[in-house]
Amino acid sequence: MKVLIIGAHGKVGHLLIGELQSHNIDFVAGLRSEEQIKAYQANNIPTQYIDLTGSLDDIHDSIIASGADVLVFTAGAGGAGYDLTMEIDLDGAIKTMMVAEAAGIKRYIMVSAMYSEDRSKWEASGIRPYYIAKHYADEHLRGTDLDYTILHPGLLTDEESVGKIKLSKDGGSVPRIDVAKTIVQAIETPSTIKKEYEFASGDEPIANVIK
Amino acid sequence: MKVLIIGAHGKVGHLLIGELQSHNIDFVAGLRSEEQIKAYQANNIPTQYIDLTGSLDDIHDSIIASGADVLVFTAGAGGAGYDLTMEIDLDGAIKTMMVAEAAGIKRYIMVSAMYSEDRSKWEASGIRPYYIAKHYADEHLRGTDLDYTILHPGLLTDEESVGKIKLSKDGGSVPRIDVAKTIVQAIETPSTIKKEYEFASGDEPIANVIK
Repeated sequence: MKVLIIGAHGKVGHLLIGELQSHNIDFVAGLRSEEQIKAYQANNIPTQYIDLTGSLDDIHDSIIASGADVLVFTAGAGGAGYDLTMEIDLDGAIKTMMVAEAAGIKRYIMVSAMYSEDRSKWEASGIRPYYIAKHYADEHLRGTDLDYTILHPGLLTDEESVGKIKLSKDGGSVPRIDVAKTIVQAIETPSTIKKEYEFASGDEPIANVIK
Repeated sequence: MKVLIIGAHGKVGHLLIGELQSHNIDFVAGLRSEEQIKAYQANNIPTQYIDLTGSLDDIHDSIIASGADVLVFTAGAGGAGYDLTMEIDLDGAIKTMMVAEAAGIKRYIMVSAMYSEDRSKWEASGIRPYYIAKHYADEHLRGTDLDYTILHPGLLTDEESVGKIKLSKDGGSVPRIDVAKTIVQAIETPSTIKKEYEFASGDEPIANVIK
């Protein structure tokens, strides 16, 4: 098994590197700039250039070159503008799904968001376009024949690991480090295929919830 | 037959009113503000309030209240910001499709754009987020059981009617008034159901092309 982290320079992606290392899972960090690649290589982290705003052919070449058989999508435009939200979180994500299907790479872990299926929460959030992008990327993924798992964490924080979560459709926060741990749990648990999990910090071991 | 023009205050929507009138097709102008409604009513144009950023329930109520059995989607955020492009052109459009399916309103005419299926043209266009929104709205429509027709006009102009078009996947412009005429042609031609047309001004009568 080899994991390509799509969005390895993001906060969750960066934390995922450490989790994969501690679980001895082979991986490669997908990065969009030479500057990021140099910085990661200086820390002996294996890297793969991938630009989600690029063409399908270029994304195909990047994913094949990575040698990965598991894709983790944890990229996002963040606050860089809703043009990039559409290009990264929506179209960028779907392009990686199209490449995965074409290349026969079945396993795909999507880091989505709590409320991506609950329109009633979008308007008051102040970031409705973000939820729209995540919603339609998830919808596309469900329509593929990929072995997907969709994770829907609540409000992300930079706090230390709680290491325990609970299923929650309506509120709650979770440290990004624990999101990284749920990704590893999903990667290691084939029974999570074709399932989705809305979750926040709680009092259950992650392995008891993501199963 | 009664047509609801979703986006009747837009340039194409406004021109469509005159075309429907001259063809004696019953219609109602879908508008998003009381100000627009007052202005149209002052001209004896039947109106229906509809806010594409509203909830599914509210959009459902608006569409049912219109009494329409044909929906024409010609709304768009235009240059108002890519947050609204996501909320109107993508999610707003799809919400009207969801309502149409739930309400059993089968006929749906989508005004899309040339190149919405051709990613190679998006980047250089300078309006890639617009194409992303149109692309995924169209994709969703194809997956519904609606009796859709998708029109993909080339570059829209405000010039006078040529009255003739041609199929074109790669370039060309077309006056908005002729797009309005193609919409009427699609409405009046059941054999256009489940079909898509990429077109620009040309030398064929519209009825010879949209058939």
